Amino acid sequence: MEGLVRCSANYVPLTPISFLERAATVYRGKTSIVYGGVRFSWEKTYKRCLKLASALVRLGVTPGDIVATLAPNIPALYELHFSVPMAGAIISALNTKVDATTLASLLQQLEPKLFFVDYQYTNVALQALDILSTKNGKPPQLVLVPEFDQATYSLSNNQELCSLDYFALLELGSPDFEVIRPSTECDPISVNYTSGSTGNPKGVVYSHRAAYLNSLAEIFRCDMRQMPVVFLWTVDMFRCNGWCLTWAMAAVGGTNICLRNVSAKVLFDALILHKITHLCGPPSILNIIANAPASEQRKLPSKVNVIVAGALLNSKILLKVEELGFQVTDGYGMTEVLGPAIVRPWKLDSDCNVSFMDDDDDDEQVKYKSREGLHNLLIEGIDVKDPKTMKSVPYDGKTIGEVMFRSNTLMSGYLYNAKATQEAFRGGWYHTGDLGVRHPNGSIQMKDRANDIIISEGRTISTLEVEAALLSHPMVSEAAVVGKFDADLKEVVPCAFVKLKDGCDANAKEITEFCRDKLPNHMIPKITVFGASTQFHWKGAKVCSKGESQCHE
Amino acid sequence: MEGLVRCSANYVPLTPISFLERAATVYRGKTSIVYGGVRFSWEKTYKRCLKLASALVRLGVTPGDIVATLAPNIPALYELHFSVPMAGAIISALNTKVDATTLASLLQQLEPKLFFVDYQYTNVALQALDILSTKNGKPPQLVLVPEFDQATYSLSNNQELCSLDYFALLELGSPDFEVIRPSTECDPISVNYTSGSTGNPKGVVYSHRAAYLNSLAEIFRCDMRQMPVVFLWTVDMFRCNGWCLTWAMAAVGGTNICLRNVSAKVLFDALILHKITHLCGPPSILNIIANAPASEQRKLPSKVNVIVAGALLNSKILLKVEELGFQVTDGYGMTEVLGPAIVRPWKLDSDCNVSFMDDDDDDEQVKYKSREGLHNLLIEGIDVKDPKTMKSVPYDGKTIGEVMFRSNTLMSGYLYNAKATQEAFRGGWYHTGDLGVRHPNGSIQMKDRANDIIISEGRTISTLEVEAALLSHPMVSEAAVVGKFDADLKEVVPCAFVKLKDGCDANAKEITEFCRDKLPNHMIPKITVFGASTQFHWKGAKVCSKGESQCHE
Repeated sequence: MEGLVRCSANYVPLTPISFLERAATVYRGKTSIVYGGVRFSWEKTYKRCLKLASALVRLGVTPGDIVATLAPNIPALYELHFSVPMAGAIISALNTKVDATTLASLLQQLEPKLFFVDYQYTNVALQALDILSTKNGKPPQLVLVPEFDQATYSLSNNQELCSLDYFALLELGSPDFEVIRPSTECDPISVNYTSGSTGNPKGVVYSHRAAYLNSLAEIFRCDMRQMPVVFLWTVDMFRCNGWCLTWAMAAVGGTNICLRNVSAKVLFDALILHKITHLCGPPSILNIIANAPASEQRKLPSKVNVIVAGALLNSKILLKVEELGFQVTDGYGMTEVLGPAIVRPWKLDSDCNVSFMDDDDDDEQVKYKSREGLHNLLIEGIDVKDPKTMKSVPYDGKTIGEVMFRSNTLMSGYLYNAKATQEAFRGGWYHTGDLGVRHPNGSIQMKDRANDIIISEGRTISTLEVEAALLSHPMVSEAAVVGKFDADLKEVVPCAFVKLKDGCDANAKEITEFCRDKLPNHMIPKITVFGASTQFHWKGAKVCSKGESQCHE
Repeated sequence: MEGLVRCSANYVPLTPISFLERAATVYRGKTSIVYGGVRFSWEKTYKRCLKLASALVRLGVTPGDIVATLAPNIPALYELHFSVPMAGAIISALNTKVDATTLASLLQQLEPKLFFVDYQYTNVALQALDILSTKNGKPPQLVLVPEFDQATYSLSNNQELCSLDYFALLELGSPDFEVIRPSTECDPISVNYTSGSTGNPKGVVYSHRAAYLNSLAEIFRCDMRQMPVVFLWTVDMFRCNGWCLTWAMAAVGGTNICLRNVSAKVLFDALILHKITHLCGPPSILNIIANAPASEQRKLPSKVNVIVAGALLNSKILLKVEELGFQVTDGYGMTEVLGPAIVRPWKLDSDCNVSFMDDDDDDEQVKYKSREGLHNLLIEGIDVKDPKTMKSVPYDGKTIGEVMFRSNTLMSGYLYNAKATQEAFRGGWYHTGDLGVRHPNGSIQMKDRANDIIISEGRTISTLEVEAALLSHPMVSEAAVVGKFDADLKEVVPCAFVKLKDGCDANAKEITEFCRDKLPNHMIPKITVFGASTQFHWKGAKVCSKGESQCHE
């Protein structure tokens, strides 16, 4: 059609970098980041990111290089989410909960040019670098990130560890740096690790296009508007780049309240002090809120949106959290789809309050077990298919198939693992490995993770059902169930990981006896392990984890 | 980087068709369209669009063909916004206010395969086809669109006009149709006509990608959330495809309240009956609301968002509208940037109410004259440049340059007019033809349309300033000023088009005398033309028009 062109005026590769560039003008003087006594404006954040990007280039970072980080939700990690891509490089924010051995293997695969390490994580980082050197891995240049609050921090304190720290690096840079934009919007922007069910971490690569579009989708999903969004960082930035909310905050000009550690007191104090509007995370965030001692709970001045995703929600905890003035939204997703992608459907009462669609359901246990959902804006397609024939299952609520996605907000593939990529995308759909059914109304109900279904005594056990029974115990705050091979029985048996509520005490027998009323014998956990929830975090593909590392020995 | 792929699982060409496909599942039973007694759900709308798309293909429409329409904001025009692209074709919604001669020239350029004409516009359409045949233009097949309410409408009534009508066509189609998706996201989806300042209509072509992204930008700009959006169609769907809100409504699962004609009574009745949350349009919509007789005004149960763009706002009218419970947002844009692209900056009070940034400014007239603004989400860049050197003007609030855009939400070009496209995009930026300055805070203040600045008696006249003076007259509801060559004076003089408020009476002398206190002598209109606002609509590049057709004879 004559007269049409594609040129730099009407075609700009999609990248989250644009959000920050716009924020620097449109949200100029608005607060971008608060961390203790540190406070930046969007204009300042933009300038800092430009300086940092220019310093990265000066240190030899070239387009396509990987820059790794090991840090909690501090301002430096937020800034690196923009400045690394602005230098044309790829950010890999590593999980701070991994051990040195795992960390070494991730570094070996990534071969990052630079490795930014928060001062609290130097030990594990140095151990990992030692292991790496024994494997003849290519060592990255280490950059220490000191505590942001310590304005007096001196470089000399740190000369033994590495020659550079974050603040010295910033000083190297220039704010006149010209951003290195991606040559195509499908260029990679980040690598996020997932363990997959085999426990073998896979590097999930996001493109600029996927990150940009998913940031927009998250704004919609989290119900953010042109109002002041004040976001409390309770979801780890190393999980799907903070569900892409790192970038989305620049798009909406929100304020990032950064936190090194999350506790009930820190959380409630921040809610009041900063007038938080939104926070996100795994369902354990609900436990922290619900189980906060009365002395630490504070009355909320207005509704706070809590967006959770991952494990089963405990309905009693959920109701308690809502009573406190929070509005909870539940989701389902995984690293490969850039975070939560299925949203529990909502309905609205006459005052426009959002609530779950199945509120009429009296059985609370069933209510939060069902995990029905519909796909978020920008997801092109979701389906439940027979993975062999790739035919859709009937909308009967019964026939089980594999949940599959098709979306521009999907990974580009697994880093250096063409086989796994090909496997995941076979037939032109992303195979989640999760089982589900399709209801007559079109919604999808998750059944269980395909690889986590336990076949015990020749019978199929849904770990979700066992977890639901455990969660109905008044003393249990979190539960995860996996299959474990029992050498004596020569059989896989259900093994439960349980976290008790603070101040509660129960033994394995009490817990399994409790389950006896609710489950058939073969589904009752044969092994019960007690622990803190952080132990369950790593190795789980979902935010809800299964403690596989302890089980699949 | 090994392991990464671009395949149908993770790369789907962006197109608004996806919004409707998702709406059919996610918003399934929710009301999509209301028009008098007609009411559809999103599932039904999807099925109707599939049927219509399949019927179009059956009638011989092939990918890349153009389908034209001449209709007000009725359900058929909404459905055609999806079904034409779903058949792989391009929709051109023509302005219902054009005369037969102009219409014939548009049809001659478009050569549409089909031409859908609302029953109220058959006369002008038939006249245009007659003119077209005298010019040996290729006649399109006519499809009559009868009144939607008349379920009993019989095909035979219409056999003289054309052999097909909308309802018969729908019956031809099948809901099992497989959608013809664009082969690339840069494929055209629509053509919208703008006159440009020369009065020579140009066909502005939008791509699927631009339409998709701008729909998302509009959701953000109009402050729509996951709440029930009930949208009253007061902006014409033939203007930038209803500012892309045709497609955006499917993305948010909103309810489209379609209207054939807008009047104060119809508007207030609809607001109450349907609990409208949003409406859009030219500033004349504010006049309709503010000047509604008391008997027709209704008390609003909750805030209604009114998004206007185009001409100067009359501050008295604006305040009156806000007193009635509306929340007004002002914008600036043009057909080439898919609608309003600059948003007036807002600030928020402690209750999160949005208000204009310059509320402290006591001079109301100045306040709404300034038209400062910042660019909407998804606009990549906005600048004020010297069009010759392409250098940015300093941020001094004084140096005048041309306002330019760079965005994925821009036209692909002018249909069959490579020269105009090249001219508009020279230097890699879209040249708006509007003048502006850049303030130290980064915001852009529109000065005037480059081609509309009047040079009279050797001096520059800002038509905006003259319009502002006219609007301050208590009897004037709308004003537009252009330059007209006066044969006697051998000079260009300011010519005013004025619409008086209902029931008001004033002559040209009274109006110009009124201006004498406010303007220097050379700026006082030498010619004053009274008329209804609809007369001003066509030929104006903006929603606010200048009645150029009468002036540039």
